[in-house]
Amino acid sequence: MLHDNNMLQDNHAINAAGHLTVAGVDTVALAEEYGTPLYVMDEARLRRNMRRYADTMSKYFPEGSMPLMASKALSFREIYRIADDEGIGADVVSAGELYTALSAGFPASKLYFHGSAKTLAEIRMGVEAGIACFVVDNFEELHRISRVAGEHGVTQNVLLRITPGIDPHTYEAVNTGRVDSKFGVAIETGQAFEITQEALETPNVRLIGFHCHIGSQIFEAAPFLDAVDIMTQYMADIRDRLGYAAEVLNLGGGIAVPYVFRDPEVDLDACIRDICEHLTERCKALSLPMPKVLMEPGRSIVADAGITLYTVQNIKVIPGYKKYVAVDGGMTDNPRYALYGAEHTALVANKAAEPQDEIVTIAGRCCESDALIGENMALQKAEVDDTIAVLVTGAYNYSMASNYNRVPRSAVVMLKDGKARVAVRRETLEDVIAYDL
Amino acid sequence: MLHDNNMLQDNHAINAAGHLTVAGVDTVALAEEYGTPLYVMDEARLRRNMRRYADTMSKYFPEGSMPLMASKALSFREIYRIADDEGIGADVVSAGELYTALSAGFPASKLYFHGSAKTLAEIRMGVEAGIACFVVDNFEELHRISRVAGEHGVTQNVLLRITPGIDPHTYEAVNTGRVDSKFGVAIETGQAFEITQEALETPNVRLIGFHCHIGSQIFEAAPFLDAVDIMTQYMADIRDRLGYAAEVLNLGGGIAVPYVFRDPEVDLDACIRDICEHLTERCKALSLPMPKVLMEPGRSIVADAGITLYTVQNIKVIPGYKKYVAVDGGMTDNPRYALYGAEHTALVANKAAEPQDEIVTIAGRCCESDALIGENMALQKAEVDDTIAVLVTGAYNYSMASNYNRVPRSAVVMLKDGKARVAVRRETLEDVIAYDL
Repeated sequence: MLHDNNMLQDNHAINAAGHLTVAGVDTVALAEEYGTPLYVMDEARLRRNMRRYADTMSKYFPEGSMPLMASKALSFREIYRIADDEGIGADVVSAGELYTALSAGFPASKLYFHGSAKTLAEIRMGVEAGIACFVVDNFEELHRISRVAGEHGVTQNVLLRITPGIDPHTYEAVNTGRVDSKFGVAIETGQAFEITQEALETPNVRLIGFHCHIGSQIFEAAPFLDAVDIMTQYMADIRDRLGYAAEVLNLGGGIAVPYVFRDPEVDLDACIRDICEHLTERCKALSLPMPKVLMEPGRSIVADAGITLYTVQNIKVIPGYKKYVAVDGGMTDNPRYALYGAEHTALVANKAAEPQDEIVTIAGRCCESDALIGENMALQKAEVDDTIAVLVTGAYNYSMASNYNRVPRSAVVMLKDGKARVAVRRETLEDVIAYDL
Repeated sequence: MLHDNNMLQDNHAINAAGHLTVAGVDTVALAEEYGTPLYVMDEARLRRNMRRYADTMSKYFPEGSMPLMASKALSFREIYRIADDEGIGADVVSAGELYTALSAGFPASKLYFHGSAKTLAEIRMGVEAGIACFVVDNFEELHRISRVAGEHGVTQNVLLRITPGIDPHTYEAVNTGRVDSKFGVAIETGQAFEITQEALETPNVRLIGFHCHIGSQIFEAAPFLDAVDIMTQYMADIRDRLGYAAEVLNLGGGIAVPYVFRDPEVDLDACIRDICEHLTERCKALSLPMPKVLMEPGRSIVADAGITLYTVQNIKVIPGYKKYVAVDGGMTDNPRYALYGAEHTALVANKAAEPQDEIVTIAGRCCESDALIGENMALQKAEVDDTIAVLVTGAYNYSMASNYNRVPRSAVVMLKDGKARVAVRRETLEDVIAYDL
């Protein structure tokens, strides 16, 4: 039985026992076998999402265009093995993400190194690994890369991160395209021109093009078309003033995924087609060569491939106020509500066929009043020991997990061909004190 | 030279080199030796804060009264060794905190187990360890404790967590005393009476009294006096209706610490004296025996014993907007700005004697626009490779740290007698992938 606020995807179903299944696997059985909280990833969905980007981008954009999976959304070794198998690239923002990718055998030649405060040690690590490119955020970093590349006798490819000054009408916290940002160098202030000129004159680096990232959870093509307008105009200015033609335009990430039933679904093919048409037109109008295009999808690759399973610990009905369903996880495994008030959709996995006719607050276990999964969530009538499934948790859940309250971090299991395997093992109490002297 | 926005404490100083010292130790030397980001804790300050609570509480309250260090503010093995040495108790909210305390040799008989969603496994662990008391949050938990205690042939002491319905005018996220809370059982709805009656009738548990926690960062005694009013009235009602006299009143935590120069300092002696006088009066008026008092200071024990050291990676001046000072840590080691917009005070540790005459945004390294240490912070003129000290970071920094962006978590060093020792070692890149298959 499907409900009004139904967010079940085509890889979800309800079996004869009335249990939620993901990729054909009974989630209640998963909770029993692996314990809760438990992150569950559907490998087929993950691969479908990667392939959709790869196929759509190669359908529209010039050869050499490619999606780079944004590691910050979800990073562990198995993800890179799958991404490599699907032939896509990845961006990393730290030594830790780089190390994880390399240790999984991901080719350095498809790794792009991002971040607004790369340390010298990280730059060394990237240069030594032979990564594809640094996405340079600031002058200091440009100089550091030049120095390190020189020391190693190599020429390092770089993209420059340019701030186009766009407000994509998303949350302030995830709106990174505006001029006043800790990221990148703004066109408006003239500093983008300066760093471009400097990059072209700096030894040991080769400028391959420009990067911009306008924000997160963007549901329409329009902000990307604005970015294309601004970036192509910038590329034409640079060509005119410095005689440099960019080979690569990296449009960043930001394409949205629906978390609740009110959220629209983004038509990825139409979005990328619109971007390509607009870019082609603009390049023609400005007599620019059509650049290779890179995009950095994170959330839109991993989010809807993941769900999280919890076990109900107690129910608290406060007459005249609300009903709290307390689960054994929360802010430690999914800090998005505490950070952004982010909304999610949930159901009782062992009662998935029953109507979601109660409105409850799902409370996490952490000792913070705001450590909730969410408020005003439609749910089947929950009881102690029920399994709760929170949907669309593949992005910024495991990657942001903490040991707050010294709660061991949860396992990640990956589903494939009806079978589950552990991709990240659950932490033990011994692990929690492993670094304490 | 001290500045208007000076937050230096009496354990801080500026040495001949113009460097910030903590407990007589040069912080710039610490950054060099142990790397950054680095948590630095002053053991003497920590002990002073613990002792101040212990001494003040024993000065005013009846024998058996005691501070319980709230583990959630900061939990690692060494903290419990110090707390035990100072003779105070502790509260824990998870198996992980309990395990950490026990593994450090902290006596179970001084451990109180808190939390709104204790699992059956956690309850078993607490009962088997012989902890002092569970602070029971809800009916289900009461029944679980009774069952487990019965299985183990013991009688388990419990406190009941009661929601007094007080708004201490603090942040919503840290305001836990209101009726509509995931924590505890409200007096107003009659449910507190019900759970008290049930606790008195439940086998294998012994009710020793009541607990309330009204919020965080409370700068005045008044909300605690309100809590005393409500709780003593409740205790009198229970005595009248059920013939039960509480031996223990646990007033929770919440006493504030100053983070920025505008914040007042709490006079702990006056605050506890006021609470005691009011409690004594109320008990007399209501013919109640004076209860033993427990308090649960977390932040006010550990916060001002800690600072965090960072290294400046780059500086970004956006003309017409602001100046960003980018450091090598941030949201991963101190998520309080991202979570609450919490304010901190910082200085350039290697230029501590210079005037703090610039207003900057200190940006963290994480790939989130909102991953800042803070905005509009007064700072000495910072340059690349400078050491930044962020003050009053002992609470809810290390305990909330994550590996977001796969950044290894920082070390904690403890200072004593002019020497530093590692209390929690820095994570390595190998540690970051340790649980990945």
